[in-house]
Amino acid sequence: MALIGKLVVCGVGLIGGSFALALRRAGMVDRVVGMGRSQASLARAVELGVIDEAATDWAVALDGADLVLLAAPVGQMDPIMAAMAPHLGADTVVTDAGSTKRDVIEALYRHLGGRLANVVPAHPIAGAEKSGVDAAFASLYEGKKVVVTPLPENAPAAIERVRAAWAACGAVIHQMSPAEHDRVFAAVSHLPHLLAFGLVHDLAGRANAEQLFSYAASGFRDFTRIAGSHPEMWRDICIANRQALLGELDQYLAELAYLRALLLAGDATRLEHLFDEARRARNAWAEQQTNIASE
Amino acid sequence: MALIGKLVVCGVGLIGGSFALALRRAGMVDRVVGMGRSQASLARAVELGVIDEAATDWAVALDGADLVLLAAPVGQMDPIMAAMAPHLGADTVVTDAGSTKRDVIEALYRHLGGRLANVVPAHPIAGAEKSGVDAAFASLYEGKKVVVTPLPENAPAAIERVRAAWAACGAVIHQMSPAEHDRVFAAVSHLPHLLAFGLVHDLAGRANAEQLFSYAASGFRDFTRIAGSHPEMWRDICIANRQALLGELDQYLAELAYLRALLLAGDATRLEHLFDEARRARNAWAEQQTNIASE
Repeated sequence: MALIGKLVVCGVGLIGGSFALALRRAGMVDRVVGMGRSQASLARAVELGVIDEAATDWAVALDGADLVLLAAPVGQMDPIMAAMAPHLGADTVVTDAGSTKRDVIEALYRHLGGRLANVVPAHPIAGAEKSGVDAAFASLYEGKKVVVTPLPENAPAAIERVRAAWAACGAVIHQMSPAEHDRVFAAVSHLPHLLAFGLVHDLAGRANAEQLFSYAASGFRDFTRIAGSHPEMWRDICIANRQALLGELDQYLAELAYLRALLLAGDATRLEHLFDEARRARNAWAEQQTNIASE
Repeated sequence: MALIGKLVVCGVGLIGGSFALALRRAGMVDRVVGMGRSQASLARAVELGVIDEAATDWAVALDGADLVLLAAPVGQMDPIMAAMAPHLGADTVVTDAGSTKRDVIEALYRHLGGRLANVVPAHPIAGAEKSGVDAAFASLYEGKKVVVTPLPENAPAAIERVRAAWAACGAVIHQMSPAEHDRVFAAVSHLPHLLAFGLVHDLAGRANAEQLFSYAASGFRDFTRIAGSHPEMWRDICIANRQALLGELDQYLAELAYLRALLLAGDATRLEHLFDEARRARNAWAEQQTNIASE
């Protein structure tokens, strides 16, 4: 892959900042320009050496840009694309780091319809426990999965450029359709987040909430860790992927209805069988995760 | 508290074994006798120095016993109490380590009705990730909560003896009614276990289960850790406490119905508000847990 002369990162937080740092470390990039909502945050990114300069408008930022990473929350993608569209050069490759793909792609079609050969959606499966540019680090993507979800309109060279950039960050590249991506992550990521937020919200609203929390222990702590995730980010993800998420939620509600029936009937045999199957599946998965990716 | 001349532990696993080790370390006990289903496991307990000897019948085990801890899965409590009842001396104090209290107490009334002054139910809130006597260690209960749920029939001296034994293990003693205990733990422990078992079972049954698990990351790992718990133990807990658990499950189903309605309506504002409330409650709780007990 050719050197990236000018990289533009829109949304210089954990995800965008770590991408810039990783490409710098790999010697893949000459100059990094940051765009974002908060000038204070961009100034901090300059101070930390994550970006070389902050741009305040897209005309300047996109002038001569080789690669653009959109790493803002998915709910902001639509206005960002609308703003950048008039200034996007024919040779600039654009990718994104959105946790959902269908909605991002809808926005791409709305605003960047004339540039689709060079606009390649993707989703890095990497850490979100801390956020902001101060949390960014060059090795975030080492050994982590990045799912590239190309469009039919994509030029092979543009797909290859995006894959190569993520590979230079140390990531393992996977490829699937946007719809498949959204179904998979609704099941293994978005639904668990919704369930954890829901449980904590349910208990926090009780008259005896303080007593309940005082007896919560390590099982509760791990089960609810993801309820500490960023509300705006997860609002955007849940709304953007609500079609697939509703499908997953309904399947899970059917599972809970079955569990409820077993409890009502006092069916110890089937309950133990179900727990045993779950434990086997969970342990088999955990054993395979020798080098588990964080999300 | 007086020295315990003879301690009988029925079910010498992580919980019972650690109780014996902790009391030995505190110099509180002269002799520990083990009872249990598996002679191999009792032999191992002798080998590890957790118990001094294994007994094969209750007449021998209970002869001259000062304190008995029943640390078997709650589903085995009924036959155990039936077997020990004819041999229980008037001065022997009995307690248990069951994760549910209503069912254990029902069994106490059925089988030990004449001895209730000296039978004091309790529940140590301590680790269950590994099980078996090899996992037992003397400091398991240090700083952990033990909930004592006395009966109206209990003699104050018997309650005090049980509290003092757990205190000698380093535990922090709490006291509540059995019904309150079962409601609290249905909410913060039993329900999360049921939900985690349910999610893994749901996904494991899909045609694309392998693909789904391959994209599961750290959020999923923590959320489902408790789905790796012991199926028999959790079957017993869920069945024993199914009245309170069904109440909790139904409250949670109402929460999920509300979340489902927000998703269907695309109500981003209320969804973010709910996520934000959950995150605040979860983070406030996590900050208080400077020295969190494991369950």
